Amino acid sequence: MDGRPVSLAQEMFAIAPAQGKANLTAAQLKLLAGKARWIFRVGEAGFPTVPTIAITRAAWEALQAERTRQDIRLRTHWVSCLFKLVSKDGKPPALVVRTSAATHNSGLQPARTGIAAPAAPEDSVDPTRALAKAIKQAFDSYGFSPKGWSFRQEDDRARQIVLVQAEAEGEIEQFLTRNATTGAIGPAALNGAPLPRSPESVGSLISLLDSKAGRHMACLVSSHRGKLQFLSARPVQASAAAELEAAVDRVQHKVWSPHNAVSRVDPNRLSQLLHPRIKSTDEVNPIATGLGVAPGAASGIITFSAEDAARLRARGKHCILVVNETGPADIEGMKAATGILTARGGMSSHAGVIARITGKPCVAGVRTLSVDTVEMVCRIGAREFRPGDRLTIDGSDGSVYLGTLPLAQPHIGGAIGTLLGWSDASRSISVRTNVETVESAATALSFGAEGIGLARSEHMFFSPERMVALRRMILSEDEEARSLAVNGLVDFQTGDYEALFSVMGGLPVTVRLFDPPLHEFLPRTDEEIEETAASLGVAVRALKMRLDRIAEINPMLGHRGVRLAITYPEILQMQMQAVIAGARAASEKTSKPVPVEVMVPFVSTASEVAWVRDRAMAIVANAGLDRSDRVKFSFGTMIELPRACLRAGDIAGMVDFISFGTNDLTQTTFGISRDDAPTFLAVYQRKGIYERDPFVTIDEKGVGEMIAIAIERGRAANPRLKIGICGEHAGDPGSLKFFSGLGVDYVSCSPYRVPVARLTLAQAST
Amino acid sequence: MDGRPVSLAQEMFAIAPAQGKANLTAAQLKLLAGKARWIFRVGEAGFPTVPTIAITRAAWEALQAERTRQDIRLRTHWVSCLFKLVSKDGKPPALVVRTSAATHNSGLQPARTGIAAPAAPEDSVDPTRALAKAIKQAFDSYGFSPKGWSFRQEDDRARQIVLVQAEAEGEIEQFLTRNATTGAIGPAALNGAPLPRSPESVGSLISLLDSKAGRHMACLVSSHRGKLQFLSARPVQASAAAELEAAVDRVQHKVWSPHNAVSRVDPNRLSQLLHPRIKSTDEVNPIATGLGVAPGAASGIITFSAEDAARLRARGKHCILVVNETGPADIEGMKAATGILTARGGMSSHAGVIARITGKPCVAGVRTLSVDTVEMVCRIGAREFRPGDRLTIDGSDGSVYLGTLPLAQPHIGGAIGTLLGWSDASRSISVRTNVETVESAATALSFGAEGIGLARSEHMFFSPERMVALRRMILSEDEEARSLAVNGLVDFQTGDYEALFSVMGGLPVTVRLFDPPLHEFLPRTDEEIEETAASLGVAVRALKMRLDRIAEINPMLGHRGVRLAITYPEILQMQMQAVIAGARAASEKTSKPVPVEVMVPFVSTASEVAWVRDRAMAIVANAGLDRSDRVKFSFGTMIELPRACLRAGDIAGMVDFISFGTNDLTQTTFGISRDDAPTFLAVYQRKGIYERDPFVTIDEKGVGEMIAIAIERGRAANPRLKIGICGEHAGDPGSLKFFSGLGVDYVSCSPYRVPVARLTLAQAST
Repeated sequence: MDGRPVSLAQEMFAIAPAQGKANLTAAQLKLLAGKARWIFRVGEAGFPTVPTIAITRAAWEALQAERTRQDIRLRTHWVSCLFKLVSKDGKPPALVVRTSAATHNSGLQPARTGIAAPAAPEDSVDPTRALAKAIKQAFDSYGFSPKGWSFRQEDDRARQIVLVQAEAEGEIEQFLTRNATTGAIGPAALNGAPLPRSPESVGSLISLLDSKAGRHMACLVSSHRGKLQFLSARPVQASAAAELEAAVDRVQHKVWSPHNAVSRVDPNRLSQLLHPRIKSTDEVNPIATGLGVAPGAASGIITFSAEDAARLRARGKHCILVVNETGPADIEGMKAATGILTARGGMSSHAGVIARITGKPCVAGVRTLSVDTVEMVCRIGAREFRPGDRLTIDGSDGSVYLGTLPLAQPHIGGAIGTLLGWSDASRSISVRTNVETVESAATALSFGAEGIGLARSEHMFFSPERMVALRRMILSEDEEARSLAVNGLVDFQTGDYEALFSVMGGLPVTVRLFDPPLHEFLPRTDEEIEETAASLGVAVRALKMRLDRIAEINPMLGHRGVRLAITYPEILQMQMQAVIAGARAASEKTSKPVPVEVMVPFVSTASEVAWVRDRAMAIVANAGLDRSDRVKFSFGTMIELPRACLRAGDIAGMVDFISFGTNDLTQTTFGISRDDAPTFLAVYQRKGIYERDPFVTIDEKGVGEMIAIAIERGRAANPRLKIGICGEHAGDPGSLKFFSGLGVDYVSCSPYRVPVARLTLAQAST
Repeated sequence: MDGRPVSLAQEMFAIAPAQGKANLTAAQLKLLAGKARWIFRVGEAGFPTVPTIAITRAAWEALQAERTRQDIRLRTHWVSCLFKLVSKDGKPPALVVRTSAATHNSGLQPARTGIAAPAAPEDSVDPTRALAKAIKQAFDSYGFSPKGWSFRQEDDRARQIVLVQAEAEGEIEQFLTRNATTGAIGPAALNGAPLPRSPESVGSLISLLDSKAGRHMACLVSSHRGKLQFLSARPVQASAAAELEAAVDRVQHKVWSPHNAVSRVDPNRLSQLLHPRIKSTDEVNPIATGLGVAPGAASGIITFSAEDAARLRARGKHCILVVNETGPADIEGMKAATGILTARGGMSSHAGVIARITGKPCVAGVRTLSVDTVEMVCRIGAREFRPGDRLTIDGSDGSVYLGTLPLAQPHIGGAIGTLLGWSDASRSISVRTNVETVESAATALSFGAEGIGLARSEHMFFSPERMVALRRMILSEDEEARSLAVNGLVDFQTGDYEALFSVMGGLPVTVRLFDPPLHEFLPRTDEEIEETAASLGVAVRALKMRLDRIAEINPMLGHRGVRLAITYPEILQMQMQAVIAGARAASEKTSKPVPVEVMVPFVSTASEVAWVRDRAMAIVANAGLDRSDRVKFSFGTMIELPRACLRAGDIAGMVDFISFGTNDLTQTTFGISRDDAPTFLAVYQRKGIYERDPFVTIDEKGVGEMIAIAIERGRAANPRLKIGICGEHAGDPGSLKFFSGLGVDYVSCSPYRVPVARLTLAQAST
């Protein structure tokens, strides 16, 4: 029967008749959208339910057309359908008209109650009469919200439904099936309405709905002389924590299997539970206080526009979007910001709603704040702030602090720990992390990381005193100067590697060879150049000349990655020595094995891989490591250029593993510089050119095919090849599902995304 | 027999015995490298030839090994072979030992003459005796020049041969089979040696060798009492013009078919004939004069190093490499330079030889020139020049001029015209050109271009006053300002398009929509910024702020191409109007059809193509063109990003044609910024990481596969799809052969490469 249109007479039917069962056809069951679905289910389960009928827009319009033709065939069906609202006593009830949209939204017509039953058949379709008028207005209200429907075609619009109910006697009670914040089983208060007078009386209804819907529901019942009648229910969005607690609770009450729980929690919402908090506020006072409308703490640079926020994010900077209030135009900026601060609005303001949905810490309604986007300045009380100044906000209590406060990281426990434990049982792809500091590694381990898939050696230099050493190397004029500078780096690195290998306690660590694109590591502004010149002990003029000489027009595609190792082999030599020394020291200290995976980045030809591998592995062979060191080296390459994907067959024969760098692969496959994309990417999404930002969710049809080609060729040439993904997409649920289908061995993402990856990969493998 | 080793006794044999015929086995014929080949051929053809035998290195070494073992089996063969040099009279002749390398070079041992025949069998292999000593030294001299051999393996080294000849009586005469400069049939003087006393006597030998070898040969004969004897011959490198004339002459004398001539001329050398010359020197005096050692005129920026020359070339700039003298380290710089100027050296100097081989105009030995590479300055007489100053050189007469003189372009006629005419008959792929000015279009037409495959609209603004208009558009702050600026451009463009369409007289013209990557069009130095601010009428400070705001980190991958059309539709709108108006005016003026192909650049998704096509073609549809206008529009896209290659199937259904932009496709497939590549590309080639510069010859295994994938998917989706290549590789013979195999419909290259493409594609299609 599926797919075949039902006759219009069949599109007006009782979903909970006053007498007997509904006996719906398959086609009618498919029409049950929104509340209709829950009314039918509750009624079918035997719980007292107010008599309810449904009519589709198509049927309603046919009734109206028939009326102008002065025909009565369909009307006869309609009247007989209305009679299904009449109980045994035969007394026509007062009527209620309800919308029943697939997705609830505020544009819909509220329930119309107290409608007199039609006095004559012709009244039942006459739009000047109460019933038909209410039905028409209910249908009309769907027009305001095409997005409220999951359908797209005009056909589907015809299948929208409106409900007519018998009005119940007694008092109306509203409540939630579960607490929206904690997830505990209800009844729980909805919008401050009083709880049912006898909570135990709704217990069975709550259990029924909770198991049928598997999510938080808002319920409407009538209570008359101790007798309950179910009127309606609709799902509500609970906090991520509440959803998670509810999922675990359902498993504990045998409503769900652990497998069910794993598959039904949205990984995107999981990440919202992993918020940092301010370590200590003992010594600091807030400079302002507003409402904490979305939890978590955030520090960052002040910015006033979505475009600037996107730009900063593309460069890996944290920012706080500071605005008077937010609106639909700000959503992109909010997504790009680390936190949001508004002068106006409260818990249910646009800022609050979007911040909670997107999981961004948000402080709203700071009365002492005003933003002047023309002058590009904001004032908090008497203080003035400009773009680039730093703030810290705490979305849990609404505090705003000056500068950058140290944040403490969340930990995995309770419901989230339980759920992730279950998820690991059905997951076959490993989850590693992209870190290079001991602190981040510890965070990632606490989140369940099973190794480091990407340690970006050059990121170990993101502190002022170390940056000097790195810049000295990049800026060196000849091999001698470069060797000296590299020696300076090795001193730092040996200790860094030892600490990193030690904290990982025997788990594999992938060390990516130096890959510093010039634009990320060289000073740019006059101020930075002066500072750098001072720290390097050279004249500003000389430094500027040197910078001019090595400046690149497109540093993303410049002298970096493997190109650096081949042109300056002394860098490779010394880095390998540091890695070996660090590994040996860690093995001695921890008495655990140290599996080191050396990874060469940014290759485009197999000859580059061979060149570096031969030299790197010769250094390892000559290091005099023996069995007692328990250090094991393997060698691989990062696949992040289209040519490397095509030549993966040649490359695979020379390596133990490959790992896809999906960020750079997306940049080169699309020909887009991520740093520069904000100027057109927003327009592209608005005009529908890109459905999604390809830097957030992997582009399956382009970049994805590149990866698929590489995996196929790589595995054909080397069946024992280990394959990973280490770009940022490895923390995105949509992308992870795709990677899972490609048969990769591991993914590696930032520490906060590790739980998301664990859950998503468990879902994808079932 | 091929591939099976011959016995060592068979590797000592007569190629021109004193009596009878040589009767060589197939294996022996394969051993005939270098001179041996010509001696055998001439002897076989019945021309009196001095008795000659050959011995391989393997046989020679076996003889020596046998001698230490005191065995004589092989020596007996050798002695009997030496007896083949003895004529009927039985008198043992004096002997000559000659090398016979596959490729002649200066490290080889010159012929040793007057060697007494061995007095006893043991003398024939004793290296303290004259014959064996000379043979050993001849083999040893091959060691200096491994590149002189076309073989690579040790096996092939064993098959190197040395010749032993009977010394001829009488006088030795040397000559060329054809004039090395004009190509006219010889005898012609070789290295200033006198011509044969009776030229007619060598006529039949010359005809014989010319038809057998099909190239210029240097001959050695002996003349004794009016009797000639052929001694030896080897090929010599003639000028490109001489080779071409000779090829046409051979066809006219029925030695070759036209098809032979087309297939045997090296297209790389053809381009050397297409040199510009200085239009007029009436009003100017040279500032210096040297030797014109490689013909043609060149203007450009002074540069002192290979790296700077490569950098300038990558940015499309002409430069003159100015050095005291050149050496092997300068070859890359010479290839990258437009012309070469040296202080020392003459016609046969390194500079002269390499310049002629690479086809670069070169003036050598300018005595008043001195170059100081430390101070980065050169002096010509009392004048000082620094990098960035401009010179013009004339390699035909050795003149050096100040500044940039207007150059006149060569034209196709005489032998080159004849050859290209023949080539067109066997060519199925069209050759178009990449031009945007009327002058270049006329040049390209005179070279046989069959249309314009790439008119880069933004290049029409490469003049100071127009650049202001373009910069005004790029720098505009909002839509209104941008529309005004674009209107300014349209005024220029309508006339430009009209002129371009008119000069092409009905041939197709592909107009690429605006694609100005910011780094190519914005001022960079303080000086340029001041100039631009003045010309735009804005404050320097304001301009700097605006430049900072729109600066891109990786402009190659930035806001350009189709991204500009989508974010600023007003640019698309106005450009289309200019194209339409220009086409209509050209059609009215010339009364010829105007087939315009609109091409959108830098797409990565089919949705971009659809967006621009719908709007562009709507503008055409609304322009009110009618049949009388004879203007025909088609729409296509440039494929220059890996993603566009993969999605070519989606794209092909929406377009009439696609054209591969191989420059950008190489940049993105390899992840290399061509602008920034010189810092590592030279090291890569030196270390053997890249065999060839992928920006010169298409990388078949990577970029080539990308193109092949796109063609396969494109044709499958749209069998009527027209496919072209418009990157610089379309003028490179090696790349053209590859493209020909892919089944493209046309290629489009710079005007000077049009003849090269015509010839190469003719060769490739046979």
